[in-house]
Amino acid sequence: MVNPDLVKERQNSTLDVDKLNLFFGQNLLLSTERYKHILNLKKRLTNQIKSLYDENYENLERNDKYELVLRKSIELIEFGLENNIDNYLEYTYIIGEVMGTEKQIFGLHFTMFSISLDLWSTPEQKTHWANFMKQNGIFGTYIQTEIGHGTYLRGLETTATYDSQTQEFILDSPTLTSIKFWPGASGKTCNYAIVMAKLIIDNKEHGIHAFVVQLRSLENHRPVPGIELGDIGKKHAYEGIDNGFVKFNKVRIPRDNMLMRFAHVSPNGEFKRTGNEVVMYACMLIMRGILCMFASLLHSISTTIAIRYSCVRRQTADPSGIEPQIIEYQTQQYRLLPGLATSYTNFFATVNFRNILNEFKKSSENFLKIDSNEIAKLHAISSGLKAIVFEDCLKFAQLNRLCCGGHGYSASSGLQPVIQEADAGCTYEGDNTVLYLQTARYLLKSAQKGFSPHLLPQNFQETKDSKVFVRFEKYTSLFEKLFEAKLREVSERMFYLIEEKNMNQYDAWNNSSLLLVETARIYVSVFVIYTNLKSLNDHSKMECNQNQIVLEELFELYLLYGIVEKFSIHFLKLELIDGTRMTDLQTKFFELLKKVRVNALCLVDAFGWSDSNLASSLGVYDGNVYEKLFDYAKNSLFNKNDVHKVYDKLVKPYVETKAKL
Amino acid sequence: MVNPDLVKERQNSTLDVDKLNLFFGQNLLLSTERYKHILNLKKRLTNQIKSLYDENYENLERNDKYELVLRKSIELIEFGLENNIDNYLEYTYIIGEVMGTEKQIFGLHFTMFSISLDLWSTPEQKTHWANFMKQNGIFGTYIQTEIGHGTYLRGLETTATYDSQTQEFILDSPTLTSIKFWPGASGKTCNYAIVMAKLIIDNKEHGIHAFVVQLRSLENHRPVPGIELGDIGKKHAYEGIDNGFVKFNKVRIPRDNMLMRFAHVSPNGEFKRTGNEVVMYACMLIMRGILCMFASLLHSISTTIAIRYSCVRRQTADPSGIEPQIIEYQTQQYRLLPGLATSYTNFFATVNFRNILNEFKKSSENFLKIDSNEIAKLHAISSGLKAIVFEDCLKFAQLNRLCCGGHGYSASSGLQPVIQEADAGCTYEGDNTVLYLQTARYLLKSAQKGFSPHLLPQNFQETKDSKVFVRFEKYTSLFEKLFEAKLREVSERMFYLIEEKNMNQYDAWNNSSLLLVETARIYVSVFVIYTNLKSLNDHSKMECNQNQIVLEELFELYLLYGIVEKFSIHFLKLELIDGTRMTDLQTKFFELLKKVRVNALCLVDAFGWSDSNLASSLGVYDGNVYEKLFDYAKNSLFNKNDVHKVYDKLVKPYVETKAKL
Ligand SMILES: Cc1cc2nc3c(=O)[nH]c(=O)nc-3n(C[C@H](O)[C@H](O)[C@H](O)COP(=O)(O)OP(=O)(O)OC[C@H]3O[C@@H](n4cnc5c(N)ncnc54)[C@H](O)[C@@H]3O)c2cc1C
Ligand SMILES: Cc1cc2nc3c(=O)[nH]c(=O)nc-3n(C[C@H](O)[C@H](O)[C@H](O)COP(=O)(O)OP(=O)(O)OC[C@H]3O[C@@H](n4cnc5c(N)ncnc54)[C@H](O)[C@@H]3O)c2cc1C
Repeated sequence: MVNPDLVKERQNSTLDVDKLNLFFGQNLLLSTERYKHILNLKKRLTNQIKSLYDENYENLERNDKYELVLRKSIELIEFGLENNIDNYLEYTYIIGEVMGTEKQIFGLHFTMFSISLDLWSTPEQKTHWANFMKQNGIFGTYIQTEIGHGTYLRGLETTATYDSQTQEFILDSPTLTSIKFWPGASGKTCNYAIVMAKLIIDNKEHGIHAFVVQLRSLENHRPVPGIELGDIGKKHAYEGIDNGFVKFNKVRIPRDNMLMRFAHVSPNGEFKRTGNEVVMYACMLIMRGILCMFASLLHSISTTIAIRYSCVRRQTADPSGIEPQIIEYQTQQYRLLPGLATSYTNFFATVNFRNILNEFKKSSENFLKIDSNEIAKLHAISSGLKAIVFEDCLKFAQLNRLCCGGHGYSASSGLQPVIQEADAGCTYEGDNTVLYLQTARYLLKSAQKGFSPHLLPQNFQETKDSKVFVRFEKYTSLFEKLFEAKLREVSERMFYLIEEKNMNQYDAWNNSSLLLVETARIYVSVFVIYTNLKSLNDHSKMECNQNQIVLEELFELYLLYGIVEKFSIHFLKLELIDGTRMTDLQTKFFELLKKVRVNALCLVDAFGWSDSNLASSLGVYDGNVYEKLFDYAKNSLFNKNDVHKVYDKLVKPYVETKAKL
Repeated sequence: MVNPDLVKERQNSTLDVDKLNLFFGQNLLLSTERYKHILNLKKRLTNQIKSLYDENYENLERNDKYELVLRKSIELIEFGLENNIDNYLEYTYIIGEVMGTEKQIFGLHFTMFSISLDLWSTPEQKTHWANFMKQNGIFGTYIQTEIGHGTYLRGLETTATYDSQTQEFILDSPTLTSIKFWPGASGKTCNYAIVMAKLIIDNKEHGIHAFVVQLRSLENHRPVPGIELGDIGKKHAYEGIDNGFVKFNKVRIPRDNMLMRFAHVSPNGEFKRTGNEVVMYACMLIMRGILCMFASLLHSISTTIAIRYSCVRRQTADPSGIEPQIIEYQTQQYRLLPGLATSYTNFFATVNFRNILNEFKKSSENFLKIDSNEIAKLHAISSGLKAIVFEDCLKFAQLNRLCCGGHGYSASSGLQPVIQEADAGCTYEGDNTVLYLQTARYLLKSAQKGFSPHLLPQNFQETKDSKVFVRFEKYTSLFEKLFEAKLREVSERMFYLIEEKNMNQYDAWNNSSLLLVETARIYVSVFVIYTNLKSLNDHSKMECNQNQIVLEELFELYLLYGIVEKFSIHFLKLELIDGTRMTDLQTKFFELLKKVRVNALCLVDAFGWSDSNLASSLGVYDGNVYEKLFDYAKNSLFNKNDVHKVYDKLVKPYVETKAKL
């Protein structure tokens, strides 16, 4: 039986959930047909492979967790092959039925390892490695970070020294800090890797390059001689995954194992640049595109859990003696609903970014023929977008957890893996602060050149002429102005520090860096806003007016939240908004919270997450949260016996001594 | 060998670390002598009992974690007894050497269980239970929360129905939601509990009261007939602790087991109030006083880790090719140093609160003779203080984790337990939002009555006449004004909603609740500010001018952070500060960051945390972080064999099938 409060919520909503879900799916997977097909596969999968949680995952010790994750990961690969899934997004979306919000183990194999092989190989290498992978059971990973360096790529200390006598590269880890650290599944699982190392020929350094390196024997999985490697121990999450360390002790690999699409080393050791190095970024772009979508989906998961629970949970009687659903409380709405709005806007922003990227990829022969300006712009957006999407995901996941009170702290809430993934995501693939600074660097340069730094979605003119655009122009123009004012402020500050304070460029940069970060954050927010206008305009073509109204309300909430909360200090300080107007907008914001609250449950229903994907006692579709919570408790590992086995050993002697005193 | 960067930091600092540490200890434990004694005990303890981490705690599966935590907890009790430690704060401070930031299992026994027995018993009951505890091996817990109710005490459904025939209470859990849920160590460990339940006599309800209930046999530890109980399963932390559920099936307990200091049930079932019920709060007050101090200490731990690491870590070359310590980056200072300032201010605030409380306790015969107004004020402060201290602890612990980049995500960083404890602390002993609203309720009432709601530290007049006070008056008066303006704003809003919009009190309250929370937050910040002025003035009497300067810088940073960041929108919106002045203050804030940075390392050294208490690879005193990190990696459970045992089972077959394709 469905919880009566949820029944009522669903009845009272004005939303056509199925239609909105289709729009969501069509955006996610590019066509409604494909989406429906994938939904069917999801169902098939649940019948075929048990979910991690049905196999008692969380109660296992780490070795057993590893085994289970590995087993599932292999079964899931098989499932993917059987069903012709070769798109990683689709794959990841499907396997949520089994993995919940935990990670399968071959993430890097399908992403960084494959993408870098694809983008950085010469055509011959591409064919060679593709065949090699097919013929051998290869599990690949991507090895870049070292103990001493993550952010600063040029600081990597691992060397690849060319020996023209044998036509080999010699990989070496000369110091403690040069030991590779962190790469996913590199400790125990993978047998091959792309390794980033500093190329040295005849004592001359030629920058960082990518090498294909065998880590373990294909016969017996033993480490290749000269390679010392292992797991790095526990992390804040991913117990089932073996992030690893790798130490090279003069390991020789053939010359051909350097990926040479952009730079070439001839047999006798001549080094030649053969392409635009900047295209190295393409790999990062694609990776970030994927990660951003995952983060926005993850965000929608914690939102679903917290909103469902807030519609079920009742607490503290009103004067008539009735305890309201906690979602009725303003403080609760204030913490939940901007997160809901953001999970929608970030989803549409990342979907649009993916589309833009796909377009570029197509029109540029796999990123070979686009100009550096364009890729710099894309890179700037991707950096800031990755940072903001994970930042939002973390912030709201944490708020969502707090909004669930005590029960939100039970592992059964399913919120912890979301928080931890979001937290990790603020660091991996680029530390968020560093990423914002990269975006800012591009913005400053553009400002100097008088470039407009906006990256508009495709066909934006159409959006610009649309009703949606006109409707929101009063807000969007505010954000535009804020961005311009901020960019001016930071440019002027840099100028002041350099010209008046005689600082060098580097110090001026550092002394402006918080301002730079804020400018970048506002810039990506403008990108999020534009792309959402496009998506809203797309949606308006579906002629589902009732959903259009709700989506626009939600978008307005996002905008108002930006004005009265996120960026309020900037709006006020730069006098783009005065105190009185701010108060009016706050009032509007609170009114809007109430409106959005009416459809909140159905808005999370529209994401379409299944119970097995959410893996949450509090987020279940039928709202029977207390039953689930209590079931979870009863199944605790400790409850096998009435009296825990340690009683005799520890408690009893203590109680007895005490009794004798 | 100490890391050379740390050596230099320590040389360049102007701080007398030992003196400051003594001041810290004297504040913490009320006298320097006591502090020194306790430090000696800490050393003795490390030689006597191995730390959790030296026994491979984190790699154990849950049953073994429980066993280890229980064993340590019992050993620690013995150690405490041997060394005559009967103060829980001292005890907890000492055992950090063994437990790190993990919890021992008898927390509730020593706090809520003992305190409520002490405060809520009649004198006879007190003697009785004290003797009983001494003669038997009693492990107690405190059982209040149910599946359905935590925040709303009056909503508890567990009943205690009086049977005058047998002179017993019958405890019952009539519904699923009435099952007790969450109490620490109640699932498997404890044999007694204070249980909160709704008293019913002759079908008449008499509110919630406290009952001493036996949970498990003292002979064989089996659950008492009629009681179903067990562990609630995994949580986001505390794997070694058995938070439990408890279900009563008409369990009979003697009449005397109701704690009757404030209400009395006679043998024939007459109910009589015999004291001021409001004093029930005293227990909460003491508990929150303790928790607040723990939270501020916890905060200082994550600060220590992140600042030490930020002084060791170098990343990204400057134009001269040198990679600066990351603490040189403005963005890093911006995230780290306000957290450092806050860990100091929150520490002094909580210390002062504890002192105020002690004073009240003394002067009121254990809270019997204080008037309701005074306890209401204390309660308001304690609610808001608990909320803000945990909120800050969580926020900065999370920031500290991000500031440590990838390695901050290694379990060896020691940051996760801090984050998770802070997160839990935002919920347990009262949800933070609910607590702020309680503070606000008091503030509104005071405003209506024309009361000044400030609770000044003792002897504040002296502080008011001091140099320190005068020096900071320009800031403190701003906060005073902000508080007044906010209280006016929210009062007017309530008035407007009720009088103009015809809302009832309840709806007006809910529609103002975010504003109420903000007002409460500002109110406790004023309390924090005043108490810190007092502590700074105390410190000035030590005549250590060099430390005084640094502490005042740090306090100024706290104030400026409040103005330009935390409460900036309020200052601007209420036009207490205009845009230009705000820009000036921001400039000042950034300059101050650079000054504070000079002493940052020594400021965390002055907390005096030992390596075993920090349990962090990144926070080690000697700065050899990479060695520690790599040692941790090598000791990973997975690294027992070169090839993981699951290879044959899973990887090999897969690799071989693939090879055959
Ligand atoms: C879960 C997880 C999985 C990972 N998987 C992989 C993997 O598969 N393969 C791989 O190669 N690596 C992997 N990594 C490593 C990851 O890519 C790096 O940790 C990340 O790039 C951050 O670099 P860092 O650790 O050097 O951080 P640091 O650069 O040390 O950052 C520490 C602090 O310094 C600041 N900082 C650093 N430089 C600057 C600057 N120039 N200006 C201002 N501030 C600065 C940062 O903002 C941060 O606050 C993984 C990490 C994690 C946590
Ligand atoms: C680690 C841990 C240990 C614990 N240990 C114990 C223990 O030893 N003994 C024990 O008895 N209990 C224990 N608890 C339970 C704990 O005391 C409660 O979880 C806590 O009091 C919060 O209550 P709740 O769970 O009912 O939250 P809820 O009240 O359900 O809160 C959920 C949400 O509703 C909001 N909300 C609720 N009421 C209002 C309102 N009136 N106005 C505005 N918003 C509102 C809250 O802000 C929150 O966002 C523990 C909990 C945890 C997490």
